[in-house]
Amino acid sequence: MKVIRSNLDRTLNPQSIAVIGASDRPGSLGYRTMANLNGFSGRLYPVSLRLAQIGEHSCYPTIDDLPEPPDCAVIAVPAAAVEEQVEACARRGTGGCVVFASGYAELDDPQGSAAQDRLRTIARDAGMRLLGPNTTGFAHFASGAHAGFAEFPGGFAEGQKAIALVSQSGALGLALAQSAMHGTGISHVLTCGNSSDLDVADLVTFLTKQAEASAIALVFEGISDPARMIGSVRGAVAGGKPVAVCRVGSTEEGAAAVRWHTGTDPHRTFPWDEALREAGAFLVPEPDALIEAATFLAKTRNLEKTGHLPRLGILSSSGGTGILAADSAARAGLPLARFDTETVRILAKALPSFASPRNPCDATAQATSNPDLIVQCAETILSDANVDALVLPWGKAWDAGSFGTLSDVAAAKGKPICLVWMSQWLEGPGAPAAELRPSLCLFRSMERCMRALSESRR
Amino acid sequence: MKVIRSNLDRTLNPQSIAVIGASDRPGSLGYRTMANLNGFSGRLYPVSLRLAQIGEHSCYPTIDDLPEPPDCAVIAVPAAAVEEQVEACARRGTGGCVVFASGYAELDDPQGSAAQDRLRTIARDAGMRLLGPNTTGFAHFASGAHAGFAEFPGGFAEGQKAIALVSQSGALGLALAQSAMHGTGISHVLTCGNSSDLDVADLVTFLTKQAEASAIALVFEGISDPARMIGSVRGAVAGGKPVAVCRVGSTEEGAAAVRWHTGTDPHRTFPWDEALREAGAFLVPEPDALIEAATFLAKTRNLEKTGHLPRLGILSSSGGTGILAADSAARAGLPLARFDTETVRILAKALPSFASPRNPCDATAQATSNPDLIVQCAETILSDANVDALVLPWGKAWDAGSFGTLSDVAAAKGKPICLVWMSQWLEGPGAPAAELRPSLCLFRSMERCMRALSESRR
Repeated sequence: MKVIRSNLDRTLNPQSIAVIGASDRPGSLGYRTMANLNGFSGRLYPVSLRLAQIGEHSCYPTIDDLPEPPDCAVIAVPAAAVEEQVEACARRGTGGCVVFASGYAELDDPQGSAAQDRLRTIARDAGMRLLGPNTTGFAHFASGAHAGFAEFPGGFAEGQKAIALVSQSGALGLALAQSAMHGTGISHVLTCGNSSDLDVADLVTFLTKQAEASAIALVFEGISDPARMIGSVRGAVAGGKPVAVCRVGSTEEGAAAVRWHTGTDPHRTFPWDEALREAGAFLVPEPDALIEAATFLAKTRNLEKTGHLPRLGILSSSGGTGILAADSAARAGLPLARFDTETVRILAKALPSFASPRNPCDATAQATSNPDLIVQCAETILSDANVDALVLPWGKAWDAGSFGTLSDVAAAKGKPICLVWMSQWLEGPGAPAAELRPSLCLFRSMERCMRALSESRR
Repeated sequence: MKVIRSNLDRTLNPQSIAVIGASDRPGSLGYRTMANLNGFSGRLYPVSLRLAQIGEHSCYPTIDDLPEPPDCAVIAVPAAAVEEQVEACARRGTGGCVVFASGYAELDDPQGSAAQDRLRTIARDAGMRLLGPNTTGFAHFASGAHAGFAEFPGGFAEGQKAIALVSQSGALGLALAQSAMHGTGISHVLTCGNSSDLDVADLVTFLTKQAEASAIALVFEGISDPARMIGSVRGAVAGGKPVAVCRVGSTEEGAAAVRWHTGTDPHRTFPWDEALREAGAFLVPEPDALIEAATFLAKTRNLEKTGHLPRLGILSSSGGTGILAADSAARAGLPLARFDTETVRILAKALPSFASPRNPCDATAQATSNPDLIVQCAETILSDANVDALVLPWGKAWDAGSFGTLSDVAAAKGKPICLVWMSQWLEGPGAPAAELRPSLCLFRSMERCMRALSESRR
């Protein structure tokens, strides 16, 4: 049975990709795109009038010479030649085009907007989708469809909960995707630049059906239709894909700069925060908190909601970091759990005499030389019916070997364990080991951990 | 001429160190301390009744057998044997002792407090100083006097501006010191645990005279005498050593935990924030912001104050990150500079036509392939009399090769350049290259950058 796929699906999850303007000149967009597509599991068609071969791939002089209409065509030619290539793609039955070139609606010039409108009309008349112009493209890591010139890092291990990134800005997409270098699982990076056809709302809608993405991290500036944006977020959340959102251009000064950046409208008068929150989004004020928030959502989305703020247990291997956690919880308005007497009794028995079995529980430096002790205490605390979530301040940037067991404990109890990296070695050799675990949430800031727990209101 | 050194100086900047309880048993405190002292440039005396030799060092049976009274004696023996060793050190004319053992005033037990009082009395009667008990020790990286069992990373390159860390908690000291792994210059890590004699106020006073420290990062819980603490901060600031402070136990919940952690009093009713600010300290609410703030102070301490909030220039290589910077400045209440027409003219000439010469200035992705362009624009913007500081959002975790020149531009103009790491690869290969530069300030969060600039009010 042949499955009929939508052109949105063909564009962003392609089985065949044409690169128009493929090149062997290092640094050129056509060269960089071919390099990024090196691991593509589908059929790759470089299109070049000049070259017969690029690496192991034979080139085709024009898109009409391809053996099939491509699902996705990357247009890596100068702005002046873009329009005729978009037309050729539309004629050929291409699912969608990715247009890198700049010089469209982002300019202070009606000619730029007119040229962008023409591209959109060509695409829409043919039912073809268009990503861009002025975009860095996208990456779909499961298939290796990295149809862009930016070197987005990404990917995920088997069993790891991965997040998908959606950004209007390619530079921000790249900045956020670099979290993959410390172990964050990333399924997709999708950037849409000027959003002439596909905008962030479409990208969120696309991701709602993608199994590899456990949550969506969204950073956006302007959009033509706020209601569509809110609708796509509501649909994603309802479909089991939580969405963390950072809105760029939220201040008057930022909004002014948005208008001359991508030529899109930030809709300053629209009540963004209220509408996004009502749609079920998790709002993040700063982009540096976005990845942790989305990963937290990816790892906790299947937990049962309690409907009240989580009552925290805190378990540290030093008094100081436990106190910091208590401070931070208080600032975030989160209650510390009162341990049951049975919990205190079990903890007191397990811990050395100079440790504290109260909440925050200080297991002392003994815990750093005996990782089993932390696991045992974590299990005891999460078994307490008064505790909804456990916060574990982690002072050293190493994996004590217990991350797998801690993740299992969290999954078994159906309550989150948040590991908070107190180390200022912000990547640190232990970080990927923690990111990998499906039920262990990693934060690089106590404040951001508390904000995530507070916002989650499970 | 023989210089008479104070016992405070002898303790924390020793030319000779005795390790009482030196050991060849891996994992033991005596072993770990000997390993940390491997690079010590002074005279090292292991003291052991059991061993004749540790590595290349001959052991001495007791402290009385040493060829000289040591400047500093590390007491790495179990709590039960500590008191007699402190007495022996006092008799021998030791400058100061470092006591690792726990089980003193941090216990819920008057016997613990009494034992701690006895140690202090022995030391004070002899004029000897005492660091601890319940401390992880200290590290003085210029001399290699790493008189502690925690593996504090640290050190600094020639010409780099280094910060000194002061912490009551050893675990927090270690967590913060790990910033050395991404390139932060660290001259000292000093931790004092229960603070029976030397407390954080003494450590700050000591650092005021240490040339290697360009600024002080202080994290503390309780102290017996708030006025002394404030006095030491005021003295450091007046002496040209700016102090960034993060106060642990600032909430009611945190303060309760402080009391049972180090047995010190957080003095909740004392108006800490007001008093510290009046003394010239730079307050930091979260510990994850402390290192960046202190390093910012170290790199900008010699710049002239303007007395008003800095008017910012923003220079980005992508529209999105420039907008984020404008948003963040607005939230922090910092004004964007209005560029002089001459500035706009020079920028427009240097930049491609689709770039923006306004503030925030978007030099576009062209700047990422041409690092000279960023330097040229930075120099133009900082030459504008309307601009007090330049913020540079940096999307990729690499050094474009321009950090040295940018640092020189900042120094020549006498205005700070703040590089803001937008990349979520939080260490990233470029970070040490930026940290190294004496006049280029690196931040890993736009919000923290704006907070530092706002607090500095230059």
